[in-house]
Amino acid sequence: MVEQLGLIGCGLMGGSFALALKKAGAVKRVVGFSASARTIQRALELGVIDVAATSAAQAAQGSDLVLVAVPVAATEATLRAIAPEILATTLVMDVGSTKRDVVAAARLGLGAKIGNLVPAHPIAGREVAGVENALADLYQDKQVILTPLPENTPAQLQQARDVWTALGSRVLNLTPEAHDAAFAAVSHLPHMLAFAFMNAISSQPNSAELLALAGPGFRDFTRIAASDPTVWRDIMRANRDELLAQSQRFQQQLQAFDHALQSDNTEALVHLIQTASQTRAQWQKTGPT
Amino acid sequence: MVEQLGLIGCGLMGGSFALALKKAGAVKRVVGFSASARTIQRALELGVIDVAATSAAQAAQGSDLVLVAVPVAATEATLRAIAPEILATTLVMDVGSTKRDVVAAARLGLGAKIGNLVPAHPIAGREVAGVENALADLYQDKQVILTPLPENTPAQLQQARDVWTALGSRVLNLTPEAHDAAFAAVSHLPHMLAFAFMNAISSQPNSAELLALAGPGFRDFTRIAASDPTVWRDIMRANRDELLAQSQRFQQQLQAFDHALQSDNTEALVHLIQTASQTRAQWQKTGPT
Repeated sequence: MVEQLGLIGCGLMGGSFALALKKAGAVKRVVGFSASARTIQRALELGVIDVAATSAAQAAQGSDLVLVAVPVAATEATLRAIAPEILATTLVMDVGSTKRDVVAAARLGLGAKIGNLVPAHPIAGREVAGVENALADLYQDKQVILTPLPENTPAQLQQARDVWTALGSRVLNLTPEAHDAAFAAVSHLPHMLAFAFMNAISSQPNSAELLALAGPGFRDFTRIAASDPTVWRDIMRANRDELLAQSQRFQQQLQAFDHALQSDNTEALVHLIQTASQTRAQWQKTGPT
Repeated sequence: MVEQLGLIGCGLMGGSFALALKKAGAVKRVVGFSASARTIQRALELGVIDVAATSAAQAAQGSDLVLVAVPVAATEATLRAIAPEILATTLVMDVGSTKRDVVAAARLGLGAKIGNLVPAHPIAGREVAGVENALADLYQDKQVILTPLPENTPAQLQQARDVWTALGSRVLNLTPEAHDAAFAAVSHLPHMLAFAFMNAISSQPNSAELLALAGPGFRDFTRIAASDPTVWRDIMRANRDELLAQSQRFQQQLQAFDHALQSDNTEALVHLIQTASQTRAQWQKTGPT
């Protein structure tokens, strides 16, 4: 049971975390802070938070669990601001989609209290942002990746696991490096491809006619292209090297399709499609719902 | 009201068409043929067809509406086989995803009876094939593109529109050339990108670990990668030139992302993401559900 959650950032991710903890009956009080006065007001009205703090430090003060759910670029300043309020028993987590940069920022912001942070990345989200879109079941049946630090104690790691497990999440540990390499492949690259595809459509003179003809396949393929530009700017910059390497891998595979078409190599084309189709159909059986 | 539907090809698309016509109370009898004896049997058992024909010609005989729902590569031979059974009043439609090649095959297969064919492309489908997956509402609220021929009569075109409208579809006319150019952009390219992306993942040594980490964004982005390899081989080959041109456009847009990352040009990166995000968010408001 969390006595007091200090929620710093009351948007989609943070708001959903608070709602989920409340729904699970796993928190007594949520003290929230947001850089936006309007967001704090809405979070209060929606019952996401119980008490509005006037600063990040005030939200952290007296909290046994602090969730930092701010844009990754704001991590260092936020952690620096709350560091004085962090006690030996305080557990701090983030929800950032990249982890090497969060850990680096946290070392600067938290200093000697770095061991209180258990970096976390819940594999969940929506294309709509903001506290109004927060959902109590956003993390239900979703994976949460923890990237433990050498400074974390076993007790803190267990506590972090327990919090997410209480929300119905499946918890997995990775190093920050392994995390960023893997998510460049399975998340950051598909976002970049979906962005580039939308731009390839919208840059054509008849883009309005094209978009009017797009159907359900297009809808699902491009859903992630509607994601928040600021969030994704930060993710892509933070994970640049891994993302560029994945982009190169992808372009080689795309060029294999181009070449099979250009040379009218039907056998090669079928092989390329079959490999993809089988991989995807197999994943469907074991993947997330 | 259709007195008799001759259904040639009883898979997902054809089977769903028959079920939809039946649900709408718009057909009295469905005579079906499939190259697979097992499919015919299943179509009878599932109530998709009422009578099993022993040949495509037999299914067409006496039918006022004939739907040819076979792989595009089988179009010419199928139309040639049924041509003798086509009367002046018979309406023939197909459901192919490419139209220039279907029209060319139809001119060879139907000869002087080409005017009886109103080429059709319903923008609907599933990643699972076969009559077992046919749905009575597959075409409900979906677009159907007709690509009328100079030889079609206004009465035949109206009849074709009426049939699809009865199923709840929205009907739009395009030339075969405009159709193929547009669908290269909004359908065939995203399929090729999804195939190539899956292959980029599965070709990595740790692909099993990567796939285990993939989440809901990956799921939607790659859904179309599970599509039928034979169907997509034919579509991609038939629309090769337009598809290759769209692939080039896409690669230019992807390289714009690569360059923005390589040069750490944050402003350019944000602009690229914002353009994509806004286009997609705007489309969501007006696009299909």
